Amino acid sequence: MGEFALVGRSVGRVDGLEKVTGRAKYGVDVELPRMLHAKVLRSRYPHARILNVDTSEAEKLPGVKAVITAEDTNKEQVVAFGVGRSDAYPLAMEKVRFVGEEIAAVAAEDELTAEEALGLIRVEYEELPGVFDPEEAIKPGAPKIHDVEDNVSSEVEVEFGDVAKGFKEADYIFEDRFAVQYVHPCHMEPTVCIASIAGSGKVTFYENSWDPFFRRRVLRRSLGVSESQIKIVQKHLGGNFGAAQNDLSPYVICYLLARKTGRPVRFVNTREEEFIRARSRMPEIIYLRTGVKKDGTLTARHVKVIATDGAYTGMGPAMMRNGLVQVSGLYRCRNVRLEGKCVYTNTVPTCPYRSFGTAQVTFATESMMDEIADKLGIDPFELRLKNATRAGDVTVVGQEIGSCGLQECMEKVADYAGWREKRAKKHPNRGVGMACAMYQSESRWAGFIGSTAYVKVLADGRIRIISGEYEWGQGAHTILSQIAAEELRLPLEDVEFSELDTDVLPFTRGPYGGGPVTLTAGHAVRLAAIDAREKVLTAAAKMLGVSSEDLEMENRKIFVRGDRERSVSIATVASYARHRGPDIVGEGVYDPDTGVFGWEKLYGNFSRAYPFSAQVAEVEVDPETGQVKVLDFAAAVDLGKAINPVSAEGNTEGAVVQEIGTALMEEVSYEQGTVVNPNFVDYRVPRAINVPAIKTFLVETNDPYGPYGAKACGMTSNMPVAAALANAIYNAVGVRIKELPITPMKVLKALEERE
Amino acid sequence: MGEFALVGRSVGRVDGLEKVTGRAKYGVDVELPRMLHAKVLRSRYPHARILNVDTSEAEKLPGVKAVITAEDTNKEQVVAFGVGRSDAYPLAMEKVRFVGEEIAAVAAEDELTAEEALGLIRVEYEELPGVFDPEEAIKPGAPKIHDVEDNVSSEVEVEFGDVAKGFKEADYIFEDRFAVQYVHPCHMEPTVCIASIAGSGKVTFYENSWDPFFRRRVLRRSLGVSESQIKIVQKHLGGNFGAAQNDLSPYVICYLLARKTGRPVRFVNTREEEFIRARSRMPEIIYLRTGVKKDGTLTARHVKVIATDGAYTGMGPAMMRNGLVQVSGLYRCRNVRLEGKCVYTNTVPTCPYRSFGTAQVTFATESMMDEIADKLGIDPFELRLKNATRAGDVTVVGQEIGSCGLQECMEKVADYAGWREKRAKKHPNRGVGMACAMYQSESRWAGFIGSTAYVKVLADGRIRIISGEYEWGQGAHTILSQIAAEELRLPLEDVEFSELDTDVLPFTRGPYGGGPVTLTAGHAVRLAAIDAREKVLTAAAKMLGVSSEDLEMENRKIFVRGDRERSVSIATVASYARHRGPDIVGEGVYDPDTGVFGWEKLYGNFSRAYPFSAQVAEVEVDPETGQVKVLDFAAAVDLGKAINPVSAEGNTEGAVVQEIGTALMEEVSYEQGTVVNPNFVDYRVPRAINVPAIKTFLVETNDPYGPYGAKACGMTSNMPVAAALANAIYNAVGVRIKELPITPMKVLKALEERE
Repeated sequence: MGEFALVGRSVGRVDGLEKVTGRAKYGVDVELPRMLHAKVLRSRYPHARILNVDTSEAEKLPGVKAVITAEDTNKEQVVAFGVGRSDAYPLAMEKVRFVGEEIAAVAAEDELTAEEALGLIRVEYEELPGVFDPEEAIKPGAPKIHDVEDNVSSEVEVEFGDVAKGFKEADYIFEDRFAVQYVHPCHMEPTVCIASIAGSGKVTFYENSWDPFFRRRVLRRSLGVSESQIKIVQKHLGGNFGAAQNDLSPYVICYLLARKTGRPVRFVNTREEEFIRARSRMPEIIYLRTGVKKDGTLTARHVKVIATDGAYTGMGPAMMRNGLVQVSGLYRCRNVRLEGKCVYTNTVPTCPYRSFGTAQVTFATESMMDEIADKLGIDPFELRLKNATRAGDVTVVGQEIGSCGLQECMEKVADYAGWREKRAKKHPNRGVGMACAMYQSESRWAGFIGSTAYVKVLADGRIRIISGEYEWGQGAHTILSQIAAEELRLPLEDVEFSELDTDVLPFTRGPYGGGPVTLTAGHAVRLAAIDAREKVLTAAAKMLGVSSEDLEMENRKIFVRGDRERSVSIATVASYARHRGPDIVGEGVYDPDTGVFGWEKLYGNFSRAYPFSAQVAEVEVDPETGQVKVLDFAAAVDLGKAINPVSAEGNTEGAVVQEIGTALMEEVSYEQGTVVNPNFVDYRVPRAINVPAIKTFLVETNDPYGPYGAKACGMTSNMPVAAALANAIYNAVGVRIKELPITPMKVLKALEERE
Repeated sequence: MGEFALVGRSVGRVDGLEKVTGRAKYGVDVELPRMLHAKVLRSRYPHARILNVDTSEAEKLPGVKAVITAEDTNKEQVVAFGVGRSDAYPLAMEKVRFVGEEIAAVAAEDELTAEEALGLIRVEYEELPGVFDPEEAIKPGAPKIHDVEDNVSSEVEVEFGDVAKGFKEADYIFEDRFAVQYVHPCHMEPTVCIASIAGSGKVTFYENSWDPFFRRRVLRRSLGVSESQIKIVQKHLGGNFGAAQNDLSPYVICYLLARKTGRPVRFVNTREEEFIRARSRMPEIIYLRTGVKKDGTLTARHVKVIATDGAYTGMGPAMMRNGLVQVSGLYRCRNVRLEGKCVYTNTVPTCPYRSFGTAQVTFATESMMDEIADKLGIDPFELRLKNATRAGDVTVVGQEIGSCGLQECMEKVADYAGWREKRAKKHPNRGVGMACAMYQSESRWAGFIGSTAYVKVLADGRIRIISGEYEWGQGAHTILSQIAAEELRLPLEDVEFSELDTDVLPFTRGPYGGGPVTLTAGHAVRLAAIDAREKVLTAAAKMLGVSSEDLEMENRKIFVRGDRERSVSIATVASYARHRGPDIVGEGVYDPDTGVFGWEKLYGNFSRAYPFSAQVAEVEVDPETGQVKVLDFAAAVDLGKAINPVSAEGNTEGAVVQEIGTALMEEVSYEQGTVVNPNFVDYRVPRAINVPAIKTFLVETNDPYGPYGAKACGMTSNMPVAAALANAIYNAVGVRIKELPITPMKVLKALEERE
């Protein structure tokens, strides 16, 4: 693909300089004149009735400007984001259902005064019995958290092929229970929201979510205003992932306080509040049963997931389904039964956190692949390859596979790791483990999952991309800049982005359920840039008195082909146009040709392209301490086409590091509904010493549907990590840990039990 | 015109509520985190060489973060706004040319510290002789202010017809000298500029000019950045008129200080600085010669203007020309000689201030019309009517008159004032005076004088007007909202405006040289709204399964004609569209079909339509004190069509009140180059007791080229005021004052001289 000047080249991040020099402005950096500071009084109990809230003393404290409770709201449930039931209020109504839930809020001249006022609010509770384990919660007689049967917020059950027959045909049946824990996103920038109400009544929120258009849409009911009366402005994003995804409380609280005081109001979580209130990754218990012939052919699979919603639902029902679907496409097993329940517990509500519910189930399925290989005496590499999905397949759940580099990914990481040698001749206490995954490039949860973009040619010849697609750290803006610059033959520094402002940008759904930016927005920006280019050429042709087909574009200029003396700069063309009418703006819309996610059927082609990944981990286990050291890690990803290879590598490395944390150390720990490690001392995340140098391989399969052949990258690479590590540990010391995180304690216990 | 729901109806200002409740945010209200405050050291001498500037002591003052002088700039002259020569620097280079000129600037943690630091800057001057009177300045041997001959920055000389012959044919020749003084715009909000440089290097200015697109374009050289690296955001505008028009110093100063300190920098003028530094209305000396036959037919006119540019030029050369042109079209005199010189003096630079250089000359021409009438014994009303331009005329300077309500205007005010009775039977010391004027609806100074607008249909069915046209108090946004709402059959409250941000809005030239908003932007918004309507109807037709011709729009809904049960709301259509691709956005571009202003020829049709006005003032003069009391004032304006009558009336009243100040009391007084009345105690503006209730008449001629027949309104009504008052004073007590303002002192002196 040597034809491209920028696409496919490793380039530095367009937002890099600002960020590394500390000059980038984040949501937490926003200050407005006369801004007040809000603090929230949170429930001390995991489950209780609220009998009375007395705010009178707090209101009297000098510096306090307003105190609000549920009585100040319109008492309507905040609308869930398109999926699942609505069950939450911005401030608790009658009951609290987890420790940390919002009961009242204070706006004061400074944070300390607001904090002090919280201590003056008297809440009378009537404690209720809580339930914290999802398997306890679905038992008859368990405490009822919401008005639903068995505390189940959503369930699904489907069967493809004939599972009973599949198991009958099997020579062996494997059955096991796996569990994935509560993991906190650990975003560096805490949740922040600032509300400022203009004289016209229009409210502007400055915040750090990544789905402002949806957010605006669902907020209008809680605020009681029309959608266009809400404007959301975003600064650089210092994290978040899914942590703030379904929580509108900060918006409603800031809005009500701003309205009550006539001043802007800022709310920001403390780190502790992030741990106890921002959402954490959805825990799952996975019951997995697999039927297999002696030769390794998979004949049937039954996956049953019990997912924890926490006290309020959100994306859980969607994530649970997504996980069930995505793990079903990787191998060619045609008899599959998928069951899932999302269950309420008196713990913090849960959220997506990279790969949208799929890493959990992948840990189970890819662990079991190794159990099967072990039992059958087949190399795990061969077992996987034998069953692997290929290009051209329509998977059992209906995914149409346009391109598939799974085998190449497997071979790259196996070769790098010296797989055959190391499996053949094991070093004591060392082991290698493999795992694979498949993901999607986008997912049609609703009508429009496409993207709309504009490319405006500025009067100095630079261009501005006008798109609501958000840079949340994945390098999206760099990739989109490369695409636009490529199509207009401009250097990368000639591209800028509009600020993210819902009043200005075209509607965008945000990267729900995956990383749709490269595929959908990449297409949209490419089309917009091409449209802008055509408009520039048409205008230049008129100025130069030639046909636009006789022109070529290079180095910020348009030349008459074969007569380099005759040229005009893009700047001149743009400036000329603007002084005679509208600016030159190219428009691009792309909506992939896919079906809407089959909410009950779990069947269909919901994405236009599917990335694949394969990974090999090498570990050393200390049999004395149970400590696992990751010696080496190879991660290959079939991303279709690497538009910015260095960024794709970084993305892959990030996914691996993040998931090493999940696999080996991270866990939000509860004692009777209270988080006992809500800080970075007690909650351990991977540090440099916990992570090896990661070797990444970018496999380019040039997907027929991707822009320049690109699919997606970031999500696919975290899915196999935990299983690769669990498999490597098993290979090293012969024990299999089925509950994450694989702590030294668990390893040691398993080693002791095996003795 | 009963067909309209909103156009032609008096409606409250869309920005009214915010403004009267004090919630509207102005430039001076902007505060940014870590913002520094700038103060400027200004020249104490009207003309001096700068030998040395020592800032070392100032830099040492605690709290001072940066001090800059011309050495910190790129030493390039700031570019004049499309007309005239460039002659100014953001900070004085080598020489200062007026008291108040910028020499150095300080940024400090607060204003007081910055102010204190100014006192520590040592400037060594070498005083030079100054010249303050333009007629002195053009004399040989006068002090040379710039490197131009005779201190003339620009001159023009044209002749139409045969002026010598015209004077030869005249029975009488009238010759006189008139003078119009320095008048300060007295805008309530002082000049403010805040610069904030982002991590990307892009600078955002928050300020209160009304021509941000031009400003951005001319700023790029002084800042040494590309145009798209500059963004200008405007809040509500609390005044300004032309006061800040050509002055880029605050921008360059704030930018350089922000760059040097890495922090946002705010600069705001004190009231005194406004008087000595913000520009004032251009004074003119007018030598006028008119030839006339016994029957009152004008045979020739020779206008010679000496206009004061002040220390630096700006819009002066354009204003001087505009004045010469506009006064030549009102009457049918075919032999006209126009001469003008713009002259440098060591006084504050000058600016346009309502009606762009035309009120000055109108004072002369309309005073002389009464001198002629008096001499010939013809009623001034009849003399004017006899010579008046009519619809269908092409005037001596090439204006093509599509509609002309001059006669109707004259009759309205004469009838109201009881003109004939009062002229016939005079009350002692009371008098009535008439004057007329003609202006333009826009003026093509450069290529594009049109307007581009978008109307975006929001997902809740409201609409947003995306236009760079600025609301600077004239009610533009209300009129444009009426037009957009009219075309989409929406209530006025369903319309909102984009914030003024050069990054977001289409290029707009700003209301240069007149009030082009109603005509050009009115057309553009109308076209955009119609386009949006068509798009909504097309989409609705698809949804309802009918042809779009079978649909009608009403009350936020689209109905199938004849079947009111079948309907869909605009909100639903917009929301549906947005969730499938781009938002529904209508585009409108309007550029009137006129020529570019003939800079040297002063001939052509530079505007698409011409508004007219006629006024009668009634005064009482106290012969003991010379005090003039305005008893009554009638102002009629042919504005084509009053889109918002109450607003047009307000505009007219404002023009009259403002000009009563100019005519009777206001003057920026100099003593050897120093302003001696730089405050609202010593500089007198009209108060309620100085102004009678003003009777306005809106004459609707339905111009063929205006949107809904509208032309323009605000400018035309200030042009005749001073002459109407001077004529009334003459009618009252028989003395003619030819130099504004007509103070009691001047009246008394004239009365004494007549005795």
